[in-house]
Amino acid sequence: MQALIWDGVLLRHVVDAPEPHTRDGSAIVRVRLAGICSTDLQILRGYMGFRGILGHEFVGEVVDGPAHLVGRRVVGEINFACKRCPECVAGRSRHCPTRTVMGILGADGAFAELLRIPVENLHPVPDGVDDVRASFVEPVAAAIEAAVQTERFAGARSLVLGAGKLGLLVAQVLAARGDDVLVVCRHARARAMTESLGLRPVTPELVPRNFDLVVDATGDVEGLRTALACVRPLGAIVLKSTVAAAHGINLAPLVINEVSLIGSRCGDFAPALAALQADLVRVEPLLDGIRPLSDGLNALESAGRTGALKLLLRPGG
Amino acid sequence: MQALIWDGVLLRHVVDAPEPHTRDGSAIVRVRLAGICSTDLQILRGYMGFRGILGHEFVGEVVDGPAHLVGRRVVGEINFACKRCPECVAGRSRHCPTRTVMGILGADGAFAELLRIPVENLHPVPDGVDDVRASFVEPVAAAIEAAVQTERFAGARSLVLGAGKLGLLVAQVLAARGDDVLVVCRHARARAMTESLGLRPVTPELVPRNFDLVVDATGDVEGLRTALACVRPLGAIVLKSTVAAAHGINLAPLVINEVSLIGSRCGDFAPALAALQADLVRVEPLLDGIRPLSDGLNALESAGRTGALKLLLRPGG
Repeated sequence: MQALIWDGVLLRHVVDAPEPHTRDGSAIVRVRLAGICSTDLQILRGYMGFRGILGHEFVGEVVDGPAHLVGRRVVGEINFACKRCPECVAGRSRHCPTRTVMGILGADGAFAELLRIPVENLHPVPDGVDDVRASFVEPVAAAIEAAVQTERFAGARSLVLGAGKLGLLVAQVLAARGDDVLVVCRHARARAMTESLGLRPVTPELVPRNFDLVVDATGDVEGLRTALACVRPLGAIVLKSTVAAAHGINLAPLVINEVSLIGSRCGDFAPALAALQADLVRVEPLLDGIRPLSDGLNALESAGRTGALKLLLRPGG
Repeated sequence: MQALIWDGVLLRHVVDAPEPHTRDGSAIVRVRLAGICSTDLQILRGYMGFRGILGHEFVGEVVDGPAHLVGRRVVGEINFACKRCPECVAGRSRHCPTRTVMGILGADGAFAELLRIPVENLHPVPDGVDDVRASFVEPVAAAIEAAVQTERFAGARSLVLGAGKLGLLVAQVLAARGDDVLVVCRHARARAMTESLGLRPVTPELVPRNFDLVVDATGDVEGLRTALACVRPLGAIVLKSTVAAAHGINLAPLVINEVSLIGSRCGDFAPALAALQADLVRVEPLLDGIRPLSDGLNALESAGRTGALKLLLRPGG
């Protein structure tokens, strides 16, 4: 089958990747669309030391597995947990210490014609959510997680740093719960996009201070420094950037101002599918285009350019 | 009057410091006991750029001010707020941006015979709380704040890094609310002290992982690194150390494990006085001794030694 494979040095498009087969408790999914995420680009710079088929955002159709699922359109949670350890038993299977993560850690991903995934990770997609919208479920879940972690700030004055895909999803989720949201935009295109989503942009030089909540979705080590400068005492910062570099940052202001810094990675798919179905978040404006998987190398290069939004890959050509 | 004055270069004991007089809304307190805190030692290394009379932990007797307070034994909150700005109006006067802080920022402190303090900062001391116990109210309030900020973890598996004064107060407060607490102890004396308080010590090399809650009261930049290694996914770290140095720390694990890092400085005095009166925390074992203010320079030097506990200064000699 076709697949995009990262060997630690080169990313290659191959047509002879071995097809996956079901194992205990797994299903095989034919990928309809797969999204390119910033994490994929970080992996190509060494993040997580991953080797294998890239990709962790997808919508597809079950072709092998439990009878009630075969033929269904599905999305899939990306953490493959052991289901036996204390974390899993405590209901925190996303943080299972021996987990593999599709396309990120020890498990092949979605930039392929077929993928294997544990059955319990699958969520059927409601009919009202088309393939493009469904392919956004993973980043929408990650955006909702930021709101879940900061429930006590609902209705707050919030600032989102980073007007990329994730930042604009987070901003929409916070606005939907009643926050008064500003989005920091460096470029004209980001500003226009922010406004088209009904959100308020602000240029970096004019950002006010004293926000109740600041979400750093910059993917940049400088984001945290800005966040610390813009959050009010006793406020919170949600850190969405898994930047590999060290933060050479003086954290004394965090202590003096009694600020909470909340690490935030991914979220549950069920509320994300519900939000997509209810049109609580708009994802179509964030789509830059759909490319065939065979053009994946060029697509990943495009996705890495400043201001790029979401590119989807279609294994079907 | 006698006072310990820091001029940015030298700490001096003087006998001719000008006596403070009441201004609008302030009272004059004759200091009975004043505690030496790690923050005082940090100020002598440049923290906050403070100049003036050191000291912010005290118990004393009102000698000038409102009639209903004169003659009363009191303790006093250390942040002097403007009472007019948005932070003050929102009930966050501890974080008033134009505040002064007794003995730390722009206001003379308690290592003196007399001090001036806003009347609303004063709390009468209940008869059941003697002078020594009352002099601990500020660090006890700071310890309780760590529990208030982590209420959702009550009953948790908790780890306290740093078996100094603050760490042992935090550990007592967490144990009192039902946490299963371990205290990391580097030295035999700290281990004995920890056990004498009914707490469980653990040597650094044998610290388990996966704590729900880790409190860093080390005063050391390495504390945060250890805390990140010991906290479980979705757990919390309370950062009590206002270390001036930069943290050269990779925060990716905070994001991946969705950990919350909570800055924690000081707390309300009312619950601290109540905890002291109800014997919820024991402070006497943490007392190293009481020295005359005239011996303050030696006392501050002693307080800076490894393993030192609380030293109190008595201006009365």
